[in-house]
Amino acid sequence: MSASSSQRRLNIDNINPHVKAAKYAVRGELAVRSEEYRTRLAKHDGSLPFSDIISANIGNPQQLDQKPITFFRQVLSLLENPLLLEHEDVLVNQLGYKADVVERAKWHLAKVGSVGAYSASNGAPAIRQRIAEFLERRDGYPANQADIYMSGGASSGVNTLLHVICAGPSSGVLVPIPQYPLYTASLSLLNAQCVPYYLDESKDWATDLEATRTSLKEARANDVDVRCIVVINPGNPTGASLSESDVEAVIELARAENLVIIADEVYQTNVFVGKFHSFKGVLCRLQEQNPGKYDNVELASLHSISKGMVGECGHRGGYFELVGFDPAVQAEIYKFVSIMLCAPVIGQCLVELMVNPPKPGEPSYELYEKEYNGIFNGLQKRAVALHKAFSQMEGVECGEPQGSMYLFPTITLSDKAVAAAAAEGRLADEFYCLKMLKATGVCVVPGSGFGQKPNTLHFRTTFLAPGTEWVGSIVKFHKEFMDEYR
Amino acid sequence: MSASSSQRRLNIDNINPHVKAAKYAVRGELAVRSEEYRTRLAKHDGSLPFSDIISANIGNPQQLDQKPITFFRQVLSLLENPLLLEHEDVLVNQLGYKADVVERAKWHLAKVGSVGAYSASNGAPAIRQRIAEFLERRDGYPANQADIYMSGGASSGVNTLLHVICAGPSSGVLVPIPQYPLYTASLSLLNAQCVPYYLDESKDWATDLEATRTSLKEARANDVDVRCIVVINPGNPTGASLSESDVEAVIELARAENLVIIADEVYQTNVFVGKFHSFKGVLCRLQEQNPGKYDNVELASLHSISKGMVGECGHRGGYFELVGFDPAVQAEIYKFVSIMLCAPVIGQCLVELMVNPPKPGEPSYELYEKEYNGIFNGLQKRAVALHKAFSQMEGVECGEPQGSMYLFPTITLSDKAVAAAAAEGRLADEFYCLKMLKATGVCVVPGSGFGQKPNTLHFRTTFLAPGTEWVGSIVKFHKEFMDEYR
Repeated sequence: MSASSSQRRLNIDNINPHVKAAKYAVRGELAVRSEEYRTRLAKHDGSLPFSDIISANIGNPQQLDQKPITFFRQVLSLLENPLLLEHEDVLVNQLGYKADVVERAKWHLAKVGSVGAYSASNGAPAIRQRIAEFLERRDGYPANQADIYMSGGASSGVNTLLHVICAGPSSGVLVPIPQYPLYTASLSLLNAQCVPYYLDESKDWATDLEATRTSLKEARANDVDVRCIVVINPGNPTGASLSESDVEAVIELARAENLVIIADEVYQTNVFVGKFHSFKGVLCRLQEQNPGKYDNVELASLHSISKGMVGECGHRGGYFELVGFDPAVQAEIYKFVSIMLCAPVIGQCLVELMVNPPKPGEPSYELYEKEYNGIFNGLQKRAVALHKAFSQMEGVECGEPQGSMYLFPTITLSDKAVAAAAAEGRLADEFYCLKMLKATGVCVVPGSGFGQKPNTLHFRTTFLAPGTEWVGSIVKFHKEFMDEYR
Repeated sequence: MSASSSQRRLNIDNINPHVKAAKYAVRGELAVRSEEYRTRLAKHDGSLPFSDIISANIGNPQQLDQKPITFFRQVLSLLENPLLLEHEDVLVNQLGYKADVVERAKWHLAKVGSVGAYSASNGAPAIRQRIAEFLERRDGYPANQADIYMSGGASSGVNTLLHVICAGPSSGVLVPIPQYPLYTASLSLLNAQCVPYYLDESKDWATDLEATRTSLKEARANDVDVRCIVVINPGNPTGASLSESDVEAVIELARAENLVIIADEVYQTNVFVGKFHSFKGVLCRLQEQNPGKYDNVELASLHSISKGMVGECGHRGGYFELVGFDPAVQAEIYKFVSIMLCAPVIGQCLVELMVNPPKPGEPSYELYEKEYNGIFNGLQKRAVALHKAFSQMEGVECGEPQGSMYLFPTITLSDKAVAAAAAEGRLADEFYCLKMLKATGVCVVPGSGFGQKPNTLHFRTTFLAPGTEWVGSIVKFHKEFMDEYR
């Protein structure tokens, strides 16, 4: 006989209220419901009007049949089983491993050691050195391995940074809206203040400096100690890349207003329109051009193996680089990450492979290049197809696909639809997305999960799923929905 | 020119005070100093009186040359590069992969999918099912995969549990002293109360129920809302396995006092003396024998791939099982883990291999058994040798090695040594361990890093390092230290 909840020590009314307050829609009710449907589909009982679940709710490329990059996985197979290196001839002559695969694996085993051992808390020094070299090539400015902290995906890096930055209920962080809900969820857990600043949908989701300044001023007027501004560039869920002058403007704001910058740059290679401008690169240039003026700016920029053409989410690898931080604060960051011991070591090795892939002329280069471009072009093609479908849908507006892995269309729903949602105690976009899932098996995330301006509705969909059938099913569902609630 | 710390936004006086308050000695000053020495040794400048650093501060077997278990790593190599399965004949006939390795890899690829994809937030369902089956075999009672949550090592599981259990500064958790400092550090971060209960060194570090009750009573008298008791069994740093009656007594205390039990059972296979009794098994038996009486007990028990004979720390794998938790609380735990997306998937696969290793009669069994026993016997042999050395050292007392990966001897230091430590602003055990590192290259952790009764001193050393030379160097150092401070 199971105990009633009132007799238990822990119940929904006495656990950590900040855990209760945290919201994370990307894996929320819709995702749970879609997994239930997946289980039902596996029973082949014909009870659902579709034959597949399309998980367009989360940027999880390899779940949607994106193939991993061969060079990366060949190296990792040798790190998992170094005994294979005793059969180098078999590897090369019979299994198609090129000489640079073998060489890279030997480098890792010599420099990092067993992937089954804990590394240094902030990541294996040799890998941090390779990341520093990558940053120097990317930005043209020095980077120091001691300022790099490896993490289990970018998420755990964000968790670390917000933990150190937020000092209590009055600490505030400027977060773009719409945003990836990791930020609001983490701030809820820390009982700190999310200070929203709205991106400008009419300008392809660019940063609106005036609106940001207004949010900051209002928060400070309400005694919020605003300490930090988060920028997601390229944007999630928006896909927008900030222009160089937008990046400069954010840095100038941070300097003038004494804000730490967290630059979430995990989509830095997922850019279709414009160009990625790293915060580190722009900051270093500003420092060079304006001696002294930007020396106090504190920047933490994050990267990950989960996105880009790598798409290795399950390996949980990433890092952040700190610029301008107080050494005493860095020591506290080091201690904080040491409590969880270290990031997964095989994921750390994959970060090294991402930042230092095969170069032209090396044996694995040709295949690497082909696979990389194939993934890039596939993503762009699907984004364009999806965008085209949206353009045919009544009441749906969506800017050109710009990058990341998402489209974030506006939907305009009738009063009847809004009323029907309210009657179920739901937000209108949530209601719409649940209906879509039920009719098509396509799981997307309502805009309310990311935040949106009052009286606007959106949804976020990835453009990772192969094929076009699912896109057609969205178009059909939408028409039927609009007809039903006309 | 770098900014002075006062001009920066973040400084040591305004960051999160709970991060500052957290202590984690296992990777603290001594560990950092030992890495500096390692760097100096690599320069071969002859500036140090030893030729190797022995990292006896942390249970990191594969850093100290413990070889991974072949079956595990062969399967993982195929999961990292499934294309190898297109060459099954080469694998089997030329590379020594047995048929059960290939079969297991295919099972994972079919049931889990790509290790580069995010899994379900609480872990891949098929792996949770295998864990449930392992728990049923181990304990003889039912286990449900829906009550299992996979984590990045046990540490992240503890982080999850304490996050949900602690609701504010008045929430308290009973923590054994000495303890693994993850617990005190996590409670500091959460700004919750650590309520220490001292283990009884005179009884091989058994749980002292009377002392525990007294701690609980005192804390409650001081308005601490004590919600939970942590038990580390077998103990870290003590190595002690609780007797069955001790486990029963803790469960009875938890029932009577309405405490959640967190049973940290990561050393469950590292047992030399006595037998491991799982909290789940004993609780189920008590429930069976006393219908109704123990139905309200809430238990979370943790396990990991980092310890035991697996020793795969770098892969960051583990899980916890919940018994008796309110479904609404479990839903909040699910949401909490979903914010960090999922545990590393290759680590999840390794958990499956740990709980479901080759069975007698299967092709890989013989080698698995040989490797497993070799590691177990090696650990025991080194523990005994180290214990013997300690028994020859003046002022050092240490119980028989019982299990885990550690010895935790008492050291009695002279007033002169204590005064010399105080003159440097250090605790006496810290002073002693720093001197040991400087003289021998052996890095151990002072007892103060785990907590110890007032006026007692200890240190913790692993017995993982191969060879006996380092043991001899400790004996020699100790004699010289005792002579110097006589």
